[in-house]
Amino acid sequence: MSPAAPRRGRRPGAPDTRAAILAAASERFAAQGYAGTSVRSIATAAGVDAALVHHYFGTKDDLFVAALQLPVDPRERLAAVIANGPEGAGEQMLRVFLSVWDDPELQLPLIGLARSILEPSGQRLLRDGFLPAVLLPVGVALGIDRPDVRMPLVASQVIGLIVTRYLLAVEPLASMPAEDLVVVYGPTIQRYLTGPLP
Amino acid sequence: MSPAAPRRGRRPGAPDTRAAILAAASERFAAQGYAGTSVRSIATAAGVDAALVHHYFGTKDDLFVAALQLPVDPRERLAAVIANGPEGAGEQMLRVFLSVWDDPELQLPLIGLARSILEPSGQRLLRDGFLPAVLLPVGVALGIDRPDVRMPLVASQVIGLIVTRYLLAVEPLASMPAEDLVVVYGPTIQRYLTGPLP
Repeated sequence: MSPAAPRRGRRPGAPDTRAAILAAASERFAAQGYAGTSVRSIATAAGVDAALVHHYFGTKDDLFVAALQLPVDPRERLAAVIANGPEGAGEQMLRVFLSVWDDPELQLPLIGLARSILEPSGQRLLRDGFLPAVLLPVGVALGIDRPDVRMPLVASQVIGLIVTRYLLAVEPLASMPAEDLVVVYGPTIQRYLTGPLP
Repeated sequence: MSPAAPRRGRRPGAPDTRAAILAAASERFAAQGYAGTSVRSIATAAGVDAALVHHYFGTKDDLFVAALQLPVDPRERLAAVIANGPEGAGEQMLRVFLSVWDDPELQLPLIGLARSILEPSGQRLLRDGFLPAVLLPVGVALGIDRPDVRMPLVASQVIGLIVTRYLLAVEPLASMPAEDLVVVYGPTIQRYLTGPLP
């Protein structure tokens, strides 16, 4: 992978440069955490200019999501929920979440990702990267009060559901229809989003 | 460790035999899972009689809890909650849970246990051992309907809280006072114990 400066014009995709940036980003985020990694340091590691990183990947949040290699971008999937505002967002977020995790094409990569992110080496990426860069902005965009408290509460139930239904396959959760899970967990997520806080 | 038959009378503790049984139990439960392991097979592996296993450790559930080497027996800690019945059990269970997990003497061993049990090798112990042998009996003793559905729901929130507060140390959950967590999570656990189900 040669980190050549792509000055020669727009080669479609410029796969070497993109791949070099992405590899550098994955390495830096894993080693230094999200907050401790600058776009500049990733650019340096990839042998390119910081402006080029932004050109290819957008913001640092976008680059982080790209480096996670999520099979879907949660921010994209949740756009419609966000547009509808906080009322009913609990059930709607849950339906989006389940439609992604129950998709046979996505489930295995997601389970693999969840396993790696729950390992000690991945835990900082989840805490210092995924939560502030992906989950918190969803709460901010929803317009709820105290998203810094509420979104971690949401995460605590969603992570517990991922562990029990998908990783451990605890019955009856593992084979419960999505709509039953919405009945059970929807009010929980909604209360965390808009209910009383201490 | 000599698995000598302790026929010579009551040596206090008989540490070799106890240790041999416990080592055999840990090995069998880890290899075969909870359901797939009989007390007889543990006795055979330890070179003793099944009756002696029961003499030292009580039921298969008791032996399983002993093999997990939990720093506390959850069934013992929850005895008072169980005696009070299902009303208010959500908050009370949560208080017991937090008093154990927030105890500085217990927290590190519990975090270590949680890490190992969330690894693939430990996941069957959690799903096929801890949940049916420890958590389900609590629901049965509480006298709730459909404990086989409700206790996994409780587990899904408690596991999510363990991961976020203790393993990942996600703020503000990591430093939130226990009573604030009771306000937030008490109604969730109570609803899973006694609320409507699909």
